[in-house]
Amino acid sequence: MVERKSPARMILCVVEYNGTAYHGFQLQANEPTIQSELERALGELTGEETRIIGASRTDAGVHALGQVIGFRTRSDLKLRSFVEGLNHYLPRDIAIKAARQAYKDFHLRKEAKNREYRYRILNSPQRSALEDGRAYQVTTSLDADAMNNASRKLIGTADFASFTQADNYSESTVRTVYRAEVTRNGELVSFDITADSFLKQQVRRTVGALIRVGSGELTIEAFEDILKAKRYGLAAPTAPPYGLYLMKVNYDIELYGE
Amino acid sequence: MVERKSPARMILCVVEYNGTAYHGFQLQANEPTIQSELERALGELTGEETRIIGASRTDAGVHALGQVIGFRTRSDLKLRSFVEGLNHYLPRDIAIKAARQAYKDFHLRKEAKNREYRYRILNSPQRSALEDGRAYQVTTSLDADAMNNASRKLIGTADFASFTQADNYSESTVRTVYRAEVTRNGELVSFDITADSFLKQQVRRTVGALIRVGSGELTIEAFEDILKAKRYGLAAPTAPPYGLYLMKVNYDIELYGE
Repeated sequence: MVERKSPARMILCVVEYNGTAYHGFQLQANEPTIQSELERALGELTGEETRIIGASRTDAGVHALGQVIGFRTRSDLKLRSFVEGLNHYLPRDIAIKAARQAYKDFHLRKEAKNREYRYRILNSPQRSALEDGRAYQVTTSLDADAMNNASRKLIGTADFASFTQADNYSESTVRTVYRAEVTRNGELVSFDITADSFLKQQVRRTVGALIRVGSGELTIEAFEDILKAKRYGLAAPTAPPYGLYLMKVNYDIELYGE
Repeated sequence: MVERKSPARMILCVVEYNGTAYHGFQLQANEPTIQSELERALGELTGEETRIIGASRTDAGVHALGQVIGFRTRSDLKLRSFVEGLNHYLPRDIAIKAARQAYKDFHLRKEAKNREYRYRILNSPQRSALEDGRAYQVTTSLDADAMNNASRKLIGTADFASFTQADNYSESTVRTVYRAEVTRNGELVSFDITADSFLKQQVRRTVGALIRVGSGELTIEAFEDILKAKRYGLAAPTAPPYGLYLMKVNYDIELYGE
């Protein structure tokens, strides 16, 4: 007997997660990852063995408010049932926020117009219990205005080779940054950056260099020289992963909100 | 040989904690509590066995940004060393934010002018991974303006018997509320309340009743009638502890900030 199935659909989901307990987004042998949890939950929900992909491969410890995943399925579940069903099977530190249907050949990574990241710095002499694992503590007082002025130098299309490791790219290291802004709200200093896509460790290396600006160790001109030098790894140190949040991946179709 | 010790000092500390892993503030046999962790850390720092007291006895799962504790010590450590030393010995979900010296007979609970609490509601059809254990999810849409108007009825001096359990009080259930306010910020609905002191479960029962106002189940008049009835336990249900934060305990001396 041949089982009749619906034609395959391409489903996109917005995913929020606390990255603390996971070895990053992408599948790894014998290590829990966001992808492995999502594929397990999807298997339990649909009975299918399904490969999912993520719009951004976040590193171990990095969080997400608006990661986007995509998968093909022959299940005829309604979109709302994907949200509720996956949330039922997922652990409490991973949550599905929305589901949409896209056309069959939708390419999750190529069709993303841009990605928004935020990095949260706790600028305080004392550590915080509630921000533990959620913001990077910097004890020396930071000049957020200077950091903001430096961050403006990133806006535009440029070769960001200095903001990634050596030997990662046989391809182009040119990227377009649409927004780069540092704001202070009490002890919390936030860096928001939007770009078409990001090089490996780009946001965390940018933050590492911006913190040197904020503490007076680097001038804004010296920060700009790092960008202009286009030398692998020049922007350092790499800020720790747990301050970083993937906020949104924007497409021509609207994924966020009800 | 008689060891020479400094005269006893009364030290106050501001404490932040994530209450998730603890059975409340107060000591309990064989269960980890905030107090047991603080007394262990203080013993390791000073070599003394020291009893500490807390300005508010928070329930299991309740968080604090500004709990205040007090203890007597013969240690001649500087105030800054109490902050840094205790933070060294405390787990990452408990943090000392500041330390001050008070006069020797300072009564931590009686001298508190008022306490500020916040209750955080995640008003969203979907659960949140990052707010798990940090906000109470309510899926039905809440009218925050109606909740705010109802909360105004709490301001002033009144008998809040309806907002606590039966048989808890042989003493007065009259309290003075200085501030009561509900605000919405996107999916987050916050309730802020300041009072001279609080009855057991008062904030959580108030939130339970306010949510019934916000969902249209109770009118503002019916909410006010609950207050006027002065009947133990009438305000219900009791909202869960993990949405509740002890924000500040205010004294004539300034404890918060550097």
